[in-house]
Amino acid sequence: MLRFDVTTNDWVIFAPSRSVRPHDFQQRPKPQAGEELRPCPFCPGNEHMTPPEVFAVREGSTPNSPGWKVRVTPNKFPALRIEEDYHRGQDGRLFRHMGGCGAHEVIIDSPSHCLSLAQQPVEQVQLLLWALQQRYIDLMRDTRFQTIVLFKNHGEQAGTSLSHPHCQLIAASVVPHMLRHKLSVAAQYFDKTGECVYEALVEEELAAKERIVTANQHFVALIPYASGVPFETWILPRRRQSSFRWLDPSLLHPLAEILKNVLSRLHLGLHDPDFNLTIDTVPRGEEQGEYFLWHIQIHPRLTQPAGFEMGSGMSINPVLPEEAAALLREVNVDSLRST
Amino acid sequence: MLRFDVTTNDWVIFAPSRSVRPHDFQQRPKPQAGEELRPCPFCPGNEHMTPPEVFAVREGSTPNSPGWKVRVTPNKFPALRIEEDYHRGQDGRLFRHMGGCGAHEVIIDSPSHCLSLAQQPVEQVQLLLWALQQRYIDLMRDTRFQTIVLFKNHGEQAGTSLSHPHCQLIAASVVPHMLRHKLSVAAQYFDKTGECVYEALVEEELAAKERIVTANQHFVALIPYASGVPFETWILPRRRQSSFRWLDPSLLHPLAEILKNVLSRLHLGLHDPDFNLTIDTVPRGEEQGEYFLWHIQIHPRLTQPAGFEMGSGMSINPVLPEEAAALLREVNVDSLRST
Repeated sequence: MLRFDVTTNDWVIFAPSRSVRPHDFQQRPKPQAGEELRPCPFCPGNEHMTPPEVFAVREGSTPNSPGWKVRVTPNKFPALRIEEDYHRGQDGRLFRHMGGCGAHEVIIDSPSHCLSLAQQPVEQVQLLLWALQQRYIDLMRDTRFQTIVLFKNHGEQAGTSLSHPHCQLIAASVVPHMLRHKLSVAAQYFDKTGECVYEALVEEELAAKERIVTANQHFVALIPYASGVPFETWILPRRRQSSFRWLDPSLLHPLAEILKNVLSRLHLGLHDPDFNLTIDTVPRGEEQGEYFLWHIQIHPRLTQPAGFEMGSGMSINPVLPEEAAALLREVNVDSLRST
Repeated sequence: MLRFDVTTNDWVIFAPSRSVRPHDFQQRPKPQAGEELRPCPFCPGNEHMTPPEVFAVREGSTPNSPGWKVRVTPNKFPALRIEEDYHRGQDGRLFRHMGGCGAHEVIIDSPSHCLSLAQQPVEQVQLLLWALQQRYIDLMRDTRFQTIVLFKNHGEQAGTSLSHPHCQLIAASVVPHMLRHKLSVAAQYFDKTGECVYEALVEEELAAKERIVTANQHFVALIPYASGVPFETWILPRRRQSSFRWLDPSLLHPLAEILKNVLSRLHLGLHDPDFNLTIDTVPRGEEQGEYFLWHIQIHPRLTQPAGFEMGSGMSINPVLPEEAAALLREVNVDSLRST
């Protein structure tokens, strides 16, 4: 179920099935030392431990058996479900709710339990990006879905519960306020200047140079001028495009290349920090917009947001972007061997 | 220094002095087992370890010596400083910055190193609230400050670095976007209905009963209908008042009473969870507004926000507010003795 917060215009998803009872929170979750001894549901040979796959990159092997390169299954503990209702309802005068209709999928990066995305060959990163885009395209065919959030949680501080490297996606039948807000800010900038604010940012950053991490012919990686957390890194296309859905398949390779490059710099420069990766892209209905540029955001989890951040929505960032970018530029990425 | 994020309209504070170098992040901060062996700068007798106090509740003793009940000092590692500039400036065409002018203070709850606020007598909680209000009133005399954020970080997961119970405040010379946004939502509701949305919420919740945690003649504690995290609890006045600044001194006692009550329920019901507490109040210029109601928000840190929350701004909350409120209502608060 989702509920509307009348004070912020935010929708909140309630997914009580993700925890058995409120009592379960009485003891803080502790890292379980024995985890690696349990069979991993994402490893080849354990396909029966996940719900049946909805997509896979395979050459000839049978679904739900080994032989895949990337594998997509519904999340076993979904926040939203395709079977649920998506109608809005009213509780009394003030409270709005809606059904928990949506999709929640796991995209397993590769058969390898131990290699993180930074350590994978570019070709494997490209297959993963292709799988993410295919799922995005497929789920957008369901007109109940307004927004698709693609993300990766890397490491315990970033909220991972299973260590086998994987991404997730959540398709929701609402548009998050934060996304509407970003779109509105971008639209206002466009109305005022005739420009896409993200394109203008890329142009300014390329001219300034000091916050650029790396770049290739089609993409730029940079640490934004006003990044909220240390080493926050964005990867943006160099040509305007509102949605990740429209990325030309020929650009998946250069995207994989720059993503591996950036993740390698973080891995080597910061000793494999925990991070969240998200793909910012437009919701349904905004895909023809001229004012947004889809992009990847990487948020390393090096600091702990606390009362001030919660009370103000502002961030306190202890590292200047220029210094963070300089450190990442200096990393010798060739020292990370693909296996 | 502060910087303006042109894509979200958020200001970000850069405070590089809080960490020596970006390299410091290469090893994740680990809990230091020996911490309690080091002398605590907030304990009586160690007053020389903090910057000189700016305020204290004392009966006769000399400033910066023992004998205080609540003590306020500048933060030793401030995010903002009174001495800094507050003028805006432009870096190139797109990037705006401003000086890091502001104030960052620590309000030490009590002389006791070990008793949390829940375990303090109501009178001590009242003294602390009074001190917070006095600092708020005093700092608002400085017309460079637009917003004052009052908060408490309780426990390591909530971002505390020193275990002696304390609150903090940050006075900033900008208004955070999140606060503007909340005010705008409340103003729109007021324009449409003639009502304060927070008052309407309190009324609806009192009628519905199921999300009420506790109440007294002047305040109500409840778990909001669309709360973003498990056991998120708000304490709201029962009479409209835009700013914590205007709270009548006679209401500090009933506020202390309900705050201790709520914190005791969390302490006993959830085994002393880490939490952040913030006071939501209006910025300068909005203090005559009829559409906002200042209130306390408590966010227990029981879940870890991850990629989805970052990519969408939406929360996934695994516990229904009704169930959380029922659990907190059932706690026998008399079992927590004040010492």
